[in-house]
Amino acid sequence: MLPDKIKVPTFLVDEKKCRANISKMAEKAIKAGAQLRPHFKTHHSGHIANWFRDYGVQGCTVSSAYMARYFADYGWKDITIAFPFNPREKEDIDDLGRKVSLNILLESMESIAHAKFKNDIGYFIKIDVGTHRTGINPKNEVLIESIIRETTGSKLHFKGFLAHAGHAYTEDKSKILEAYRTATHSLLTLKSRFGGLVSYGDTPSCSLIDDFDGLDELRPGNFIFYDIMQHHFHSCNVEQIAVCLAAPVVALHPYRNEVVVFGGGVHLSKDFITEGMGRSYGKVVPLNNEGWSTDIIGNMDRLSQEHGIIQPIDGNFEPFKVGGLIGILPIHSCLAADLQGSYLSTQGEIIEKIHKYS
Amino acid sequence: MLPDKIKVPTFLVDEKKCRANISKMAEKAIKAGAQLRPHFKTHHSGHIANWFRDYGVQGCTVSSAYMARYFADYGWKDITIAFPFNPREKEDIDDLGRKVSLNILLESMESIAHAKFKNDIGYFIKIDVGTHRTGINPKNEVLIESIIRETTGSKLHFKGFLAHAGHAYTEDKSKILEAYRTATHSLLTLKSRFGGLVSYGDTPSCSLIDDFDGLDELRPGNFIFYDIMQHHFHSCNVEQIAVCLAAPVVALHPYRNEVVVFGGGVHLSKDFITEGMGRSYGKVVPLNNEGWSTDIIGNMDRLSQEHGIIQPIDGNFEPFKVGGLIGILPIHSCLAADLQGSYLSTQGEIIEKIHKYS
Repeated sequence: MLPDKIKVPTFLVDEKKCRANISKMAEKAIKAGAQLRPHFKTHHSGHIANWFRDYGVQGCTVSSAYMARYFADYGWKDITIAFPFNPREKEDIDDLGRKVSLNILLESMESIAHAKFKNDIGYFIKIDVGTHRTGINPKNEVLIESIIRETTGSKLHFKGFLAHAGHAYTEDKSKILEAYRTATHSLLTLKSRFGGLVSYGDTPSCSLIDDFDGLDELRPGNFIFYDIMQHHFHSCNVEQIAVCLAAPVVALHPYRNEVVVFGGGVHLSKDFITEGMGRSYGKVVPLNNEGWSTDIIGNMDRLSQEHGIIQPIDGNFEPFKVGGLIGILPIHSCLAADLQGSYLSTQGEIIEKIHKYS
Repeated sequence: MLPDKIKVPTFLVDEKKCRANISKMAEKAIKAGAQLRPHFKTHHSGHIANWFRDYGVQGCTVSSAYMARYFADYGWKDITIAFPFNPREKEDIDDLGRKVSLNILLESMESIAHAKFKNDIGYFIKIDVGTHRTGINPKNEVLIESIIRETTGSKLHFKGFLAHAGHAYTEDKSKILEAYRTATHSLLTLKSRFGGLVSYGDTPSCSLIDDFDGLDELRPGNFIFYDIMQHHFHSCNVEQIAVCLAAPVVALHPYRNEVVVFGGGVHLSKDFITEGMGRSYGKVVPLNNEGWSTDIIGNMDRLSQEHGIIQPIDGNFEPFKVGGLIGILPIHSCLAADLQGSYLSTQGEIIEKIHKYS
């Protein structure tokens, strides 16, 4: 019995649901003639990364040289570090460049000044398609040309253009589609002018869109697990959410319609969605021997470091018993997964993951 | 040179500042005739816990049996798990009860039904002094009496009343003082009626108040590190903040007055404070060879999983260079510390901490 093993907040992973999510996205990519290069910052696990191979995935995306080395040790030979080049990791990148096909992101002449490598390293130019987090304005062709010229003949090899549409993380479907159209138009214009590949992809766009005509690579990450925020963005239904925090119930306060669980900010993160006047830090479901049911029976209204406060729907306390367990579908699975020492599969097996850098 | 060692976001701990914070609080407790029983969920480190011994601290507070075992392994013999009793950790608690003087929290007859131990375990009754997170209403003397009666003659030994004034986490000083007055009045009334100790303490109250007349135990945790949120609550000045995230600068966007650093939600947590129309996810300071200066040179305006976006004050980009490092004073040091694999002392030594449960 799965629940019997659980003493403290435990992050459950349903392999079947993960595989269904991977399979669906891999099929989409094949249909579009694009390479699926999933971002592994969602699961951070060499074990889970292996599941992707069964669907033809051969390359991956990571956020740091440290994460790249971890997945290289698990046999990944084609890795893009989709984060602005961090010059302080230069030696690690160079070293890894000897062993695997490694791509980095460049977006300024300042960063190129630091990017002197002994080994061959590919690079994408990071384009800001409207999120305004980082990257080059797609209209700034002068800078793009300078970067390509500056690196010609060096160990740095131009691979194409990469973008992340963070502004497509919205409830408004039409905005997600509009963000996609504008972004891909900019990227394809640059491709026709300078050549190279177009690498694109976030979970909302890649989940909602079926026709990726012209894109060479898709890089969604979250879709393997999905979560309540992605459900909010119409990326998935509740049944597709493949992870759930099992949390011990420790106190009942029926007079204010609240249940206290052992499960707080250090287990779920402080990410929330707003709903009317309130917030949700997670949606509550009953656990069962196979994992969890998808009937939402409560809302996590607030949380502190280790306490989570749940409001049962319709004041129904029947599923909540002191000493029992309930499930919490996380708001943001990437951050919640990052907080775990390991995961527990719904088959009862411990799933190892990367250790925090130290 | 400290900065030379740093390649990725690294959590710096200034031992001198920590010791000054401990020393000040320990003196306050001695003056009040109260025992300082600091909450170790802030630093999670056996190494740092040892610093407290130099100021006469002999007992500690933790949040789970797992954390209690970790500190017991570091020689702590008097531990309170200040979290509603989690029946699923019953065996671990019982086992630990053989080795150390262990206290748990009880707050309902349901939890007592599960609390059947073979070894002697102390317990505090958790009182809700106005936070409404969990605990018993102090006016509910019938329930308190039932709990004491039910445990009489068992392995559970009544130790007194424990409360946490989470509602004292506010910018309004008069509310912090009012929360303290109301809470201690309730707790001292219960003590005079039922006996036992009064265990109280949160960082805002314990920092602002000097006269703890009648309290037996003080349990603040955050004060060893402090942070920007506590500064916001008037608990400390910026000079007392003893931790700082060193973050690599990776991109400059002067046309929108923004700097991008490697340092995001997985390094700082998503906790923020609101300031006018905006938010702060951290305050930016320059690093130096001894640690960091306390001149605030920027605000972390927003963050995603690994990216932090900083707005330099007065548009001064001079301290920000691609390939350089800057410091970020965290909003909530407990959550930021929890996210680290280890810490780096400003003397350049790695400080080990608890591993995530797995």
